[in-house]
Amino acid sequence: MSPTVHRLAIRVRYCECDPMGVAHHSVYPVWFEMGRTELLRAQGGNYRELEAAGILLAVVRLEARYRAPARYDDELELVTTLEDAGHVKIEHTYALHRGAELLATGRTTLACLDRSGRARVLPASLQTKLDA
Amino acid sequence: MSPTVHRLAIRVRYCECDPMGVAHHSVYPVWFEMGRTELLRAQGGNYRELEAAGILLAVVRLEARYRAPARYDDELELVTTLEDAGHVKIEHTYALHRGAELLATGRTTLACLDRSGRARVLPASLQTKLDA
Amino acid sequence: MSPTVHRLAIRVRYCECDPMGVAHHSVYPVWFEMGRTELLRAQGGNYRELEAAGILLAVVRLEARYRAPARYDDELELVTTLEDAGHVKIEHTYALHRGAELLATGRTTLACLDRSGRARVLPASLQTKLDA
Amino acid sequence: MSPTVHRLAIRVRYCECDPMGVAHHSVYPVWFEMGRTELLRAQGGNYRELEAAGILLAVVRLEARYRAPARYDDELELVTTLEDAGHVKIEHTYALHRGAELLATGRTTLACLDRSGRARVLPASLQTKLDA
Repeated sequence: MSPTVHRLAIRVRYCECDPMGVAHHSVYPVWFEMGRTELLRAQGGNYRELEAAGILLAVVRLEARYRAPARYDDELELVTTLEDAGHVKIEHTYALHRGAELLATGRTTLACLDRSGRARVLPASLQTKLDA
Repeated sequence: MSPTVHRLAIRVRYCECDPMGVAHHSVYPVWFEMGRTELLRAQGGNYRELEAAGILLAVVRLEARYRAPARYDDELELVTTLEDAGHVKIEHTYALHRGAELLATGRTTLACLDRSGRARVLPASLQTKLDA
Repeated sequence: MSPTVHRLAIRVRYCECDPMGVAHHSVYPVWFEMGRTELLRAQGGNYRELEAAGILLAVVRLEARYRAPARYDDELELVTTLEDAGHVKIEHTYALHRGAELLATGRTTLACLDRSGRARVLPASLQTKLDA
Repeated sequence: MSPTVHRLAIRVRYCECDPMGVAHHSVYPVWFEMGRTELLRAQGGNYRELEAAGILLAVVRLEARYRAPARYDDELELVTTLEDAGHVKIEHTYALHRGAELLATGRTTLACLDRSGRARVLPASLQTKLDA
């Protein structure tokens, strides 16, 4: 049975912070992407190999709520959870913590596409890895 | 009466595109921010001057839906609409087009903060500019 | 005869600035790339079409000198100059101004590669456009 | 005696890669910055604390040579070396490897500034940490 939750340590980079001195809100989707990449790796999968095989996972929906700012050089923990994997779509949620404090939450929907950008069914090998 | 809609031309940069050859989904929030910056300028306001005066507008909620990809060197048009300006929060929506095609939509909520990060009431001068 | 100098207006984005309140030094190479993209367009060429034809121009050397900071919302002018176009390499220099003030200078060397990443001779059609 | 060399593991992020499928050249300066941040930490210093104390280290010169591309999901090793620390300037060099292969090299010069952007002498406490 594959894991459906992954915890990733993130160190906030200087260039990710803005003149307010906090991580810019556009960086969080990048961290979310790192989280689901590592979750898939922990499940025995690999995004790079999927892409090489012509299976693209594109973000079709993104939502984020920012509760408290992350600052330069902070060590954060991102908890990525696979919520649902259907025939063509995958749902993840995210919770970003600094110690006990919850800084942000998020949700993404990925759609499986072929190289020409058309929706396609998730390959069985990936389905198996995603099944909890 | 201030305008509540702004149209911004955007040229997709090479480094904004990913190995799929399309604009990465984390770039759209950056474009949304440019859209509301220019809308505020058209209303007679200026984010830089607000920040210099200690009035920070932080994104507390972001939502985006991606319908079709934007590609390197595409010329896009971002329509930014001020939906609502309350005492401490401002709502914008976004629609990104390439010609007649709608590529993506979005919504953000900004909260007004003071320099220490505490919520504060929008200053009257800004309220006046935002009032349609 | 093609132009060998191009002037590009750049508005500094919020997310391009760091906690010092100035544009992060890693953004300048992005602006340089925009400058040479627009210079090539002014010469009748197009990077996107080159790539579609399997002709890749990769940066093999970058140099930048930062004299004075650029700030959020500044309107800058980037002057891009084609210095030399040989059989496989192209040299550009860059000067970034804010009004009369010189903020930074740069230099890049591009190498012409095929899709497999091997050096190749610049196609004659591109040579013609680059010849001043 | 402080260390003058630091080795940092870097995983190439998806959004750091461009349509050629390789890490964009503007990302390397970001990695170099991470390298010197971690070198300083290994020396007992801390950039965030320096900034909080009004001591800013700004990049005034950057040079990079790109020999072979880094790809999405590659695990790289960045070797950062403190070459020289004078009264107001600090020189670092960088070598980026993937296994035994050297992908890129770089060099930066930092200048010590006060909060108003004027050059200032490196504080004695920092000098001590940098002295090998």
